[in-house]
Amino acid sequence: MTFRKIINDPVYGFITIDHPLIFEIISHPWYQRLRRIKQMALAHLVYPGAVHTRLHHSLGAYHLMCNALQVLKEKGVSITETEETGAKIAILLHDIGHGPFSHALENILMEGVHHEQLSLLLMQELNQQFGGQLQTAIQIFTNTYPKKFLHQLLSGQLDVDRMDYLTRDSFFTGVSEGVIGYDRIIKMLVVHDGELAVEEKAIFSIEKFLVARRLMYWQVYLHKTVLSAEMILVKILERAREIGRQNPSALTDSLLKQFLLNHFTGNIAKHPDAFCQLDDSDVICSIKGWQYHPDKVLSTLCRSILNRSLLKVRLQGNPIPEEELMQKRSDTMQKMNLSQQEAAYLVFTGEAESRTYNPRFEKINILFKNGEIKDITQVDNALIQHNLSEPMKKFYICYLKQ
Amino acid sequence: MTFRKIINDPVYGFITIDHPLIFEIISHPWYQRLRRIKQMALAHLVYPGAVHTRLHHSLGAYHLMCNALQVLKEKGVSITETEETGAKIAILLHDIGHGPFSHALENILMEGVHHEQLSLLLMQELNQQFGGQLQTAIQIFTNTYPKKFLHQLLSGQLDVDRMDYLTRDSFFTGVSEGVIGYDRIIKMLVVHDGELAVEEKAIFSIEKFLVARRLMYWQVYLHKTVLSAEMILVKILERAREIGRQNPSALTDSLLKQFLLNHFTGNIAKHPDAFCQLDDSDVICSIKGWQYHPDKVLSTLCRSILNRSLLKVRLQGNPIPEEELMQKRSDTMQKMNLSQQEAAYLVFTGEAESRTYNPRFEKINILFKNGEIKDITQVDNALIQHNLSEPMKKFYICYLKQ
Amino acid sequence: MTFRKIINDPVYGFITIDHPLIFEIISHPWYQRLRRIKQMALAHLVYPGAVHTRLHHSLGAYHLMCNALQVLKEKGVSITETEETGAKIAILLHDIGHGPFSHALENILMEGVHHEQLSLLLMQELNQQFGGQLQTAIQIFTNTYPKKFLHQLLSGQLDVDRMDYLTRDSFFTGVSEGVIGYDRIIKMLVVHDGELAVEEKAIFSIEKFLVARRLMYWQVYLHKTVLSAEMILVKILERAREIGRQNPSALTDSLLKQFLLNHFTGNIAKHPDAFCQLDDSDVICSIKGWQYHPDKVLSTLCRSILNRSLLKVRLQGNPIPEEELMQKRSDTMQKMNLSQQEAAYLVFTGEAESRTYNPRFEKINILFKNGEIKDITQVDNALIQHNLSEPMKKFYICYLKQ
Amino acid sequence: MTFRKIINDPVYGFITIDHPLIFEIISHPWYQRLRRIKQMALAHLVYPGAVHTRLHHSLGAYHLMCNALQVLKEKGVSITETEETGAKIAILLHDIGHGPFSHALENILMEGVHHEQLSLLLMQELNQQFGGQLQTAIQIFTNTYPKKFLHQLLSGQLDVDRMDYLTRDSFFTGVSEGVIGYDRIIKMLVVHDGELAVEEKAIFSIEKFLVARRLMYWQVYLHKTVLSAEMILVKILERAREIGRQNPSALTDSLLKQFLLNHFTGNIAKHPDAFCQLDDSDVICSIKGWQYHPDKVLSTLCRSILNRSLLKVRLQGNPIPEEELMQKRSDTMQKMNLSQQEAAYLVFTGEAESRTYNPRFEKINILFKNGEIKDITQVDNALIQHNLSEPMKKFYICYLKQ
Repeated sequence: MTFRKIINDPVYGFITIDHPLIFEIISHPWYQRLRRIKQMALAHLVYPGAVHTRLHHSLGAYHLMCNALQVLKEKGVSITETEETGAKIAILLHDIGHGPFSHALENILMEGVHHEQLSLLLMQELNQQFGGQLQTAIQIFTNTYPKKFLHQLLSGQLDVDRMDYLTRDSFFTGVSEGVIGYDRIIKMLVVHDGELAVEEKAIFSIEKFLVARRLMYWQVYLHKTVLSAEMILVKILERAREIGRQNPSALTDSLLKQFLLNHFTGNIAKHPDAFCQLDDSDVICSIKGWQYHPDKVLSTLCRSILNRSLLKVRLQGNPIPEEELMQKRSDTMQKMNLSQQEAAYLVFTGEAESRTYNPRFEKINILFKNGEIKDITQVDNALIQHNLSEPMKKFYICYLKQ
Repeated sequence: MTFRKIINDPVYGFITIDHPLIFEIISHPWYQRLRRIKQMALAHLVYPGAVHTRLHHSLGAYHLMCNALQVLKEKGVSITETEETGAKIAILLHDIGHGPFSHALENILMEGVHHEQLSLLLMQELNQQFGGQLQTAIQIFTNTYPKKFLHQLLSGQLDVDRMDYLTRDSFFTGVSEGVIGYDRIIKMLVVHDGELAVEEKAIFSIEKFLVARRLMYWQVYLHKTVLSAEMILVKILERAREIGRQNPSALTDSLLKQFLLNHFTGNIAKHPDAFCQLDDSDVICSIKGWQYHPDKVLSTLCRSILNRSLLKVRLQGNPIPEEELMQKRSDTMQKMNLSQQEAAYLVFTGEAESRTYNPRFEKINILFKNGEIKDITQVDNALIQHNLSEPMKKFYICYLKQ
Repeated sequence: MTFRKIINDPVYGFITIDHPLIFEIISHPWYQRLRRIKQMALAHLVYPGAVHTRLHHSLGAYHLMCNALQVLKEKGVSITETEETGAKIAILLHDIGHGPFSHALENILMEGVHHEQLSLLLMQELNQQFGGQLQTAIQIFTNTYPKKFLHQLLSGQLDVDRMDYLTRDSFFTGVSEGVIGYDRIIKMLVVHDGELAVEEKAIFSIEKFLVARRLMYWQVYLHKTVLSAEMILVKILERAREIGRQNPSALTDSLLKQFLLNHFTGNIAKHPDAFCQLDDSDVICSIKGWQYHPDKVLSTLCRSILNRSLLKVRLQGNPIPEEELMQKRSDTMQKMNLSQQEAAYLVFTGEAESRTYNPRFEKINILFKNGEIKDITQVDNALIQHNLSEPMKKFYICYLKQ
Repeated sequence: MTFRKIINDPVYGFITIDHPLIFEIISHPWYQRLRRIKQMALAHLVYPGAVHTRLHHSLGAYHLMCNALQVLKEKGVSITETEETGAKIAILLHDIGHGPFSHALENILMEGVHHEQLSLLLMQELNQQFGGQLQTAIQIFTNTYPKKFLHQLLSGQLDVDRMDYLTRDSFFTGVSEGVIGYDRIIKMLVVHDGELAVEEKAIFSIEKFLVARRLMYWQVYLHKTVLSAEMILVKILERAREIGRQNPSALTDSLLKQFLLNHFTGNIAKHPDAFCQLDDSDVICSIKGWQYHPDKVLSTLCRSILNRSLLKVRLQGNPIPEEELMQKRSDTMQKMNLSQQEAAYLVFTGEAESRTYNPRFEKINILFKNGEIKDITQVDNALIQHNLSEPMKKFYICYLKQ
């Protein structure tokens, strides 16, 4: 009897693991760590169901990769067993480099290091631990493998990563309008001249996918309350870092403190294990401690997250007038007896941006029955022409309730 | 204990009937007749689940009307009990004038009479039977009732009719991408200056609704095979009528024959009962009989529907060249030994059109937080500007497989 | 590129046809006829969504068969391509012998002939048409094929037929409690000593399956109003037959009339085509005609179905007292001026029975980790011991509203 | 316009908060803390989706309470506005006394104090903070309110607590077989002689509910791997306590340490705030620290949880033989060089028990059409007679992989 493990998934029913190496990777402590990192950071403060983990998402993306490879093989695309396992491992590990609260804290804890670089670093380290068995996976991940479509399946406009996160985030938030026809899109995938494309009859499904993505951005990912909560999280760590730099003993010792004070920046490659110790719980526990910190700014921000009494936020199409920012800061300075620099942690502005489809950098190739290939923006009557391919920017201000 | 009947609905869970008059209307033979008229005519030849009935759809629209009225009342909109019952009855009966195969045969059986006129006629007749209790319903239906929003709830860009049919048709076809956030849209409904509007934060849901509608049109309602089947149905009745006009005894007697030969045109108002005897089964039984008819054209078309060996069809962005039509007709004439006029029943062209949003005739009013009202096409960054408000037309040719 | 057709199914998402022979069988007029036979007869009078067809059910059962065979092959069970295609064809055609309104009219139109006999007859006829390619399918269907588990997959306590109809009927009625874990059960199937069994850890899923079945029987299939409607249907045909036997010209000519008057009984094998002309529409059209028949009993029964003004019905644990039956008949005789024999069509009693699990005739084999096999009734602590294995009988009386 | 907040819930669609007091309670830090306590403790190690929180569950139960009260009011049951708000607050706060990992650690952190006692304590404290507005809620919670059915709605065999957790846990685990017909059961609720009952026609839904519960117990809550993980968690805290009692400085200071060393036992009433500081993150962070603890037993157990390399476990119908336990302990003593007392943390036995329906303590009253009331075990032909009302016990052994 062949190797076979089955995992219940509320989104897809069952996810099957039928390769011992894949099972070993899933069992690795670094992968298991993803159980302790929420996929959607603080979105659960608005959508209470959105507490699913990055482990769950990457298992889901793996499942869709399995389906996509199966469809392509049935359509006669040549894919060897090594390539198949490689693509599955690559998607499984594509987010292994995420730290606590995923995107929300990405630039704080490892300044200047993108999570994809960390993913690669950790994959290389795992490759050594597993005796070189991740070689193909790494090539696919870094797009150095000759069959380009394998990389496109895991990173592109229509990759299984996006298909899973839209589907899964929609499922767990309960925003049913984010539902996409992932199974139909996958069934319509083809390979043409070595590149991934979709059959003509999937055009409406792809439009739907792009519109669902746009909706999820503005209704969920960039929801003004989620934005406020995640900005507070950033401000907390920035403030803690500032305090720690001035006086290290003002922060209790912890691994998080070491990262905040940049002990690892620039040499994380030598300490992958340290990075893999970090997860959401480190941040939460520090915040729970700091809610009693003598620094008023830090303690105010921490209680704000813990008790969900967030900063007020306004999101609008035009930039926030400088005077308004200054006025609100000044109010807070007075009310809380703070300096201007301190008040800037509690009253600040920023921009939120979403681009549904960027035809310059990525393409969605449509394969017509007559063998022609067109980018979706070139298709007659397509929805996705100007509107969705231009970035949509909004401006926000967060400030303390008076 | 109050009056209360509960109906299981796979789409919404339960539909509640809590008014005796509404229950009596549902129990009326004319309403029960809608059980024998498929909502989606012949779409089930492509989507086998799409066999739901017009009765089921109108019950569903009634359910959404109940929800919408409840939401508006909770928001302080004044709606009397009479108005509430009126709006519910109006939506329940809005499709009572549909004949066999709904839209597909609308212009064949009752030439020049739109199903909404028939609905009104039957509502007036029922109003007499029920002692005038449908007065308010009729006013709302005909948009002569002062509170315009009541009519807009049942007929407008965002009415409960569309919300139900998109949701229900999506459910029964299994085209999950047609799913719309009907519950969110309904929760965001407001009345402003006596007109229906939606709150600003529903913008993305409405975009999603319009895109879902566009997708359902092209993927389902105007699917080329569905188009072919429904055109064959039309051709069958046209051919039978032609035969019957030349020689009435060439068609077996039936109620359908009387309608075909226009015994009722122009005086249906005197025979509402005759119209209400007709349903899908009359057409199917006639087709089953005609599959053995000596007329080759008629029998060929009938077998084509019954055995689902449909005419071939091609759908394209440009008009079909006249030469192609002529060539294909000529092939069929030769192959089947037919005249040109006869071959035109088996080889023909046409146009299919869908307009997602027509800002000239109908409006989707968005109510902004600052009290401003804008049509959705005027909203900054909205998806629905040019693309979706222009009609999208395709051209098709149907022809006999050679 | 391989042969591949995809059908949208709201229950399973997509159903794939990847064998040309299977596609040809599905395209055969006899199979297409199943589009015109409702799976659940008149249950839609209570559950308006339950209008799905026998074609849809058999496609669904085919889909589950594909999944089950795939699981068994992955577990190392030897199944040849011929066997696989055979099993798929057998399940596709297992209900081909159903006539109008399926079980409801089974004993009326073809007295003494079970639908499985007709299915076999039609399969044999198709086998000739397809040049002997259905040989293995027929052996599997008749349980004469050596690998018994193939037959058990299509007919047994845990067959894909039951799994599909419970799942599908639950879906279309909206009775969510009928939902079963078909995918889990299928994933747990094994073959042991040539017989189908399920792994130990599926025990609770199987209990759930049996309880869901019990619930569907009493809440849906034997719902008192459904029972009443289907008995009225039977009475209509019995009455029409009686009238036709006394005076053939009292019934309009039709194929249904020929079946009613038993022109085909005993020699259907010579006229499979005649049988395959019949479907629900023949019965509905006849009933529509008979609602104006001079025979009061027949016209009353017909209007009762068409207008859903059904006979009243009471279902109880004890037999209906003879006196009550006589009293109600006598009331009806007086009220409608009927003879006792006539009144018996409008006032009658009967029994409804459901047996969830019959351990004598069928077994659900549980394979334990230690290799032991036990029937589910023998498992410690199992739910299914006495209660569910004893038949549960109820008694009903139908009568005219006074 | 009335007060109205809407929360997206993937299970029920939307949850509405329409009372300012209820919104204030939800906004209270003690309630918000429930965001950091997983509803299903460590079940997510087997079912990765099962990471939903106790906040989400109590909001869900609140939603069902709203529905149930609405149904009863529509059926004419007298419920005042005060009672309605009271019942809603009572269900919202019914689990406020849960500590980290809910049931799994209940007896460790607050020895001898049941979470319901803590809930009551916190409700009384909140009642003071809210100026006595929780008085009715507390009476309903403690079953001292005259209308007994209000208490039964929140605590009984068919309460909204159970209905929500079965539905929600089934949803998030993806164990679709745990789905219950909560909406049907709620629609069938009635009050008879001041007690809650269900209408006769809900019998099969209730059977289904009890069987679903049985399935969820054995397939999910008492799943052997979940059992193993939760027992490891208990052993970790027991071992840490033992170490801390012998030498307090061997554990880093933390609030959890104070609870472990029983600083609060017996006088929690004076320190509700301390208890409300604790959540899952405290336990996780301690475990992360202890994985490097010099005590081999503690560090082994901690790594086991963090890396999901759990103790092996066997679940069986008969007690585990003492010799087996001794043999396995002895193996571990040798392998890890441990004392017998130490090895008992890594090799141990226990019992798991589930009772689906206990007719002695709780009743499910069925109201028959003739006005009679029977307990479900007394209903003819009911499934729930002996099998489900007897407790079902299993025995397990956990041990270190060799």
